[in-house]
Amino acid sequence: MPDFLIAPDPSLPRLTRAVSGIDHNGAAVDLRVVEERPLTIFLNAQEIVTAMTIGDYPEELAIGYLLNQGMLHRDDTLTGVDYDEELDVVVIRTGRVTDYEEKLKKKTRTSGCAVGTVFGDMMETLEGLTLPTAEVRTSWLYGLAKQINTVPSLYLEAGAIHGSVLCRGDQPLVYMEDVGRHNAVDKIAGWMFRNAIDPGEHILYTTGRLTSEMVIKTASMGIPVLASRSGFTAWGVEIAREVELTLIGRMRGKRFVCLSGAERLVMDVDVDTIEDEGAKHRRKGAD
Amino acid sequence: MPDFLIAPDPSLPRLTRAVSGIDHNGAAVDLRVVEERPLTIFLNAQEIVTAMTIGDYPEELAIGYLLNQGMLHRDDTLTGVDYDEELDVVVIRTGRVTDYEEKLKKKTRTSGCAVGTVFGDMMETLEGLTLPTAEVRTSWLYGLAKQINTVPSLYLEAGAIHGSVLCRGDQPLVYMEDVGRHNAVDKIAGWMFRNAIDPGEHILYTTGRLTSEMVIKTASMGIPVLASRSGFTAWGVEIAREVELTLIGRMRGKRFVCLSGAERLVMDVDVDTIEDEGAKHRRKGAD
Repeated sequence: MPDFLIAPDPSLPRLTRAVSGIDHNGAAVDLRVVEERPLTIFLNAQEIVTAMTIGDYPEELAIGYLLNQGMLHRDDTLTGVDYDEELDVVVIRTGRVTDYEEKLKKKTRTSGCAVGTVFGDMMETLEGLTLPTAEVRTSWLYGLAKQINTVPSLYLEAGAIHGSVLCRGDQPLVYMEDVGRHNAVDKIAGWMFRNAIDPGEHILYTTGRLTSEMVIKTASMGIPVLASRSGFTAWGVEIAREVELTLIGRMRGKRFVCLSGAERLVMDVDVDTIEDEGAKHRRKGAD
Repeated sequence: MPDFLIAPDPSLPRLTRAVSGIDHNGAAVDLRVVEERPLTIFLNAQEIVTAMTIGDYPEELAIGYLLNQGMLHRDDTLTGVDYDEELDVVVIRTGRVTDYEEKLKKKTRTSGCAVGTVFGDMMETLEGLTLPTAEVRTSWLYGLAKQINTVPSLYLEAGAIHGSVLCRGDQPLVYMEDVGRHNAVDKIAGWMFRNAIDPGEHILYTTGRLTSEMVIKTASMGIPVLASRSGFTAWGVEIAREVELTLIGRMRGKRFVCLSGAERLVMDVDVDTIEDEGAKHRRKGAD
């Protein structure tokens, strides 16, 4: 079993619920389905957003969301992180006085799940950004995929959930899951902030598609490599090339496609030794 | 080939882009990836939202989005529907004077993709709602899945995209695709409004997960049956039961699970005659 710093805990009762129904034979079935609950995020006195989330790591989600929206700065000092489980509210407090009233007026609905993401602003944060040089060995990619897809997870337990994993070399470190795939990435951003992690030499693995927003988030987190089981959008590829992020998609079995930043790739493994993904493979898309 | 009223047109050059990269062998590959572009929706003089969309059926998307947000009413008369392709803007005009400034201040980030969805408001629209009685034959479900999964689509061409299909009996009628799965449903809502379709006796099929928002949208569209290849969230199931919507998920090959409204199901087919989904099956999740 890999030595994750944070791995999913499918046994947590708060995250799934047992429901009954019937199957294709008309027989009664019981299954576990993932929870989905609102979490309202405040930055100081201002209500920023209500996210629909599975409910774990609310503090990391709130901090990461605010960071990835540019509302919390890398050099901000947090003077309070208060989560109220009964009210489903997180309040993040900073020494700096904040007011995002104007920014909150602008609404962008992204391809996958963010509210209030201001693309113009997010693109601005990428201006002048230089992602660290790094190498990505293909042996790491294969090893990571195998570890991530086999470690116990809510996905394997209940399905209908996305995962994002912060990795370093061939080691998956922090595996976050959420009903919203952007929430999973935001939780990782929040964890990195709280633990003062240098993003260089890290790889972000996601089960979700490589859309513009996912690429922008990864780049603004300073992570040079983004890999996914899923496919690409044209704008996601375009932005990755602009910021020189290594973008790897359609990672299934021995296969993958790299559409940006291939110069970081080190092909150190004979692909004929890698098993292709069979029908038995349980990880499908979370959709 | 089924006789769709609207089917995907993967040959439209505006919807995909050719990109080059390398594959797992280090060999050069060319592939088509889906576009993702902003579309800003105005209701009369008010800017409502910017959606990231693949770009087809912008007028249906705008109308459906506004309907599903409760900003456009079923009995509204549209006095103008103006799409400007160069500006990526749609303006919907109504005889009724509209002002959603207060509503726009409230931001909810859902599990999958909607911005500015106000859950409280959406739940209110469901109060007192009675979905029509209807029957759903399992032979229809199997026939629909087969037709939808084999008709040429952007999904089969380029992947990384979601689909929603309005069906009646065993006939798929309108198949919309989009990078955002809620956009695909909104396009169907817009099409139904423009064509004055009675939602009773219809089935909505989606490739996406059965989250709270997807269930709320389907119910508020008046459609009594929602079916998906993907899984459930607990809140999605709970709302479906409250409004007595028939909710069918995990439809793959002969298998499915019905977690709400099973009284509408008519099991008219011997499941042993249905082929199970094999490894060759090309439709995976869009993630």
